[in-house]
Amino acid sequence: MKALVFHGPGRSSWENVPDPGLQEPADAIVRVDTTTICGTDLHILSGNVPDVRPGTVLGHEAVGEVVETGDEVRTVRPGDRVLVSCVSPCGRCRFCREQAYGQCHGGGGWVLGRLIDGTQAEYVRVPFADLSLHPLTGAADTLEAVLLADVFPTAYEVGVLNAGVRPGDTVAVVGTGPVGLAAIATAELFSPARIIAVDLLPTRLEAAKRLGADAVVQTTEGPEPLVDDLTGGLGADVVIEAVGTPASFEACTRMARPGGRIANIGVHGRPVTLHLEDLWMRNLTITTGLVDTRTTPTLLSMLTTGRLPAAASLITHTFELDQMEEAYDVFSRAADTGALKVALGVPTRPLVPTETNGEK
Amino acid sequence: MKALVFHGPGRSSWENVPDPGLQEPADAIVRVDTTTICGTDLHILSGNVPDVRPGTVLGHEAVGEVVETGDEVRTVRPGDRVLVSCVSPCGRCRFCREQAYGQCHGGGGWVLGRLIDGTQAEYVRVPFADLSLHPLTGAADTLEAVLLADVFPTAYEVGVLNAGVRPGDTVAVVGTGPVGLAAIATAELFSPARIIAVDLLPTRLEAAKRLGADAVVQTTEGPEPLVDDLTGGLGADVVIEAVGTPASFEACTRMARPGGRIANIGVHGRPVTLHLEDLWMRNLTITTGLVDTRTTPTLLSMLTTGRLPAAASLITHTFELDQMEEAYDVFSRAADTGALKVALGVPTRPLVPTETNGEK
Repeated sequence: MKALVFHGPGRSSWENVPDPGLQEPADAIVRVDTTTICGTDLHILSGNVPDVRPGTVLGHEAVGEVVETGDEVRTVRPGDRVLVSCVSPCGRCRFCREQAYGQCHGGGGWVLGRLIDGTQAEYVRVPFADLSLHPLTGAADTLEAVLLADVFPTAYEVGVLNAGVRPGDTVAVVGTGPVGLAAIATAELFSPARIIAVDLLPTRLEAAKRLGADAVVQTTEGPEPLVDDLTGGLGADVVIEAVGTPASFEACTRMARPGGRIANIGVHGRPVTLHLEDLWMRNLTITTGLVDTRTTPTLLSMLTTGRLPAAASLITHTFELDQMEEAYDVFSRAADTGALKVALGVPTRPLVPTETNGEK
Repeated sequence: MKALVFHGPGRSSWENVPDPGLQEPADAIVRVDTTTICGTDLHILSGNVPDVRPGTVLGHEAVGEVVETGDEVRTVRPGDRVLVSCVSPCGRCRFCREQAYGQCHGGGGWVLGRLIDGTQAEYVRVPFADLSLHPLTGAADTLEAVLLADVFPTAYEVGVLNAGVRPGDTVAVVGTGPVGLAAIATAELFSPARIIAVDLLPTRLEAAKRLGADAVVQTTEGPEPLVDDLTGGLGADVVIEAVGTPASFEACTRMARPGGRIANIGVHGRPVTLHLEDLWMRNLTITTGLVDTRTTPTLLSMLTTGRLPAAASLITHTFELDQMEEAYDVFSRAADTGALKVALGVPTRPLVPTETNGEK
């Protein structure tokens, strides 16, 4: 089969590799119909994720069809259309028993496209298939379902739920790449008073408005003065960090009101300075987290019933699966191309229209 | 009257000052029967709290008797025995309406011994008396009630409640001065599986055992290896920081298990390094906070009914009120004197015995 193989920092190619086969009785083999590229894949390519050995097939998001299952697999069978989650939980360790699947200590967790071959391929072996695969039915069986492999559960769990967004809150989302935009879309579910989007790129702020942002702040430096104006000098009830740089995180801590909650989603490569000399008395709550994908069934249900109507608008570019290298090029030059999420492969049904749910 | 007056960094004296009088209709004047010294008073004396102007009477904790009240005061009257809380809430601002009294924006908050004259005096003017004074009855009318002005609500609210201690948790308390010890005593109320106390001083760790610590770690450097041994390498469910130094805070972030909660109580004077490059994916929750004293009525009730039996053992030294300078000397040399809390003034009833509640 063909797959996108990592060959060390800065080097990858779409090339022939052996077909994957079952290795464990809990495995399933899935034919990949749709996959996508994550900012984390770019981190891997830049050599910043030393876990990933050369020779690994990248990718941890897919929609496809089950073609083979191991003897222990009970919840899916060949022919089932499924979402392949970015997290493969063993289901048995102390973390999985608390639904902290992302912290799995039983050989699972985020392994696809990191410790084992991933989804940017024609076929993928998925471990712990009963918990890692989610059957797709009805309206969820569309192109944007692939966004529920990682982007939406990450934004919802690590951003919105960790921050405890409540009705009436002022929510600032710093960084409006795909995950920040999904945070805006899912924060909306809790009826906040106002969502303020902060980013460097006007195109992303336009997308933020489409997804539900009430105000946007374009910034090349600290966004606090403008956000302060928007909150009467108080600060935001909730700040969601979706960038992953020290400057962004530190700005987030300044943007929160006394008693505010700061949820870090960003993947950080460096330490940050926490100004406890100011913050010790401000009653802040700061959370960090890797997605558990414990909410994926709920999000799929909401996608099916039209409660995530804006999701499809995150997909700005579509490609055939064998245009993988071109897709990487477009995605990695997002500032120029305006790319948010790129989808590779063909949907089995048309995109859900974003304007008129009635057309579904 | 006599009072302990701050005269700038390193200088204070017990001297004659004018008696306080009512200034606002919500004020009360309280005769101080018992007061104490807080680590924060030492910070002020060292010049690290620039809010405090020379000429200010220090102290924010007291038990005494109301001698005069303004026209608006309804809940206390002259002759009442009261606890003077370290926080004086206006009760009307948006923060007070959420019981975030410590963040009061209506002219209150922590003002005693900081922005206005405090409790290390024979008399004190207390603003917003209806919310700042707590009537004392029964067994709570004892020497250790003064610990509920600051130490116990701080440890309970900013440590134990912010961290969300739950039955079965492993709780590490880093720093076992008076607030850390009170955190141990109040964490016990939630039936944790185990409390691990970490400190430099053997005398404090002995006190930690008396207050409920199941294991103690004496450390002059990083406490993590020993705590790791005690938790099977997993880390603690809850870590409570009660020191206020960068090294201590950073150790706390390493001691928490994935999914753990870190509650900072320590008063910090410098920024700390937050290692988000490791912590972004560990599902941590970090909280900061100034005490609100919203739990003071509950804690007083528990003191009255004997549910805080260890509280009295925090008071290691007692003095007459006019031995203030000697008390400061003993308290500031805690490493040599073994002082935890010092109490100044006379109790109106004997100390509650700590060993045998039946004697109350």
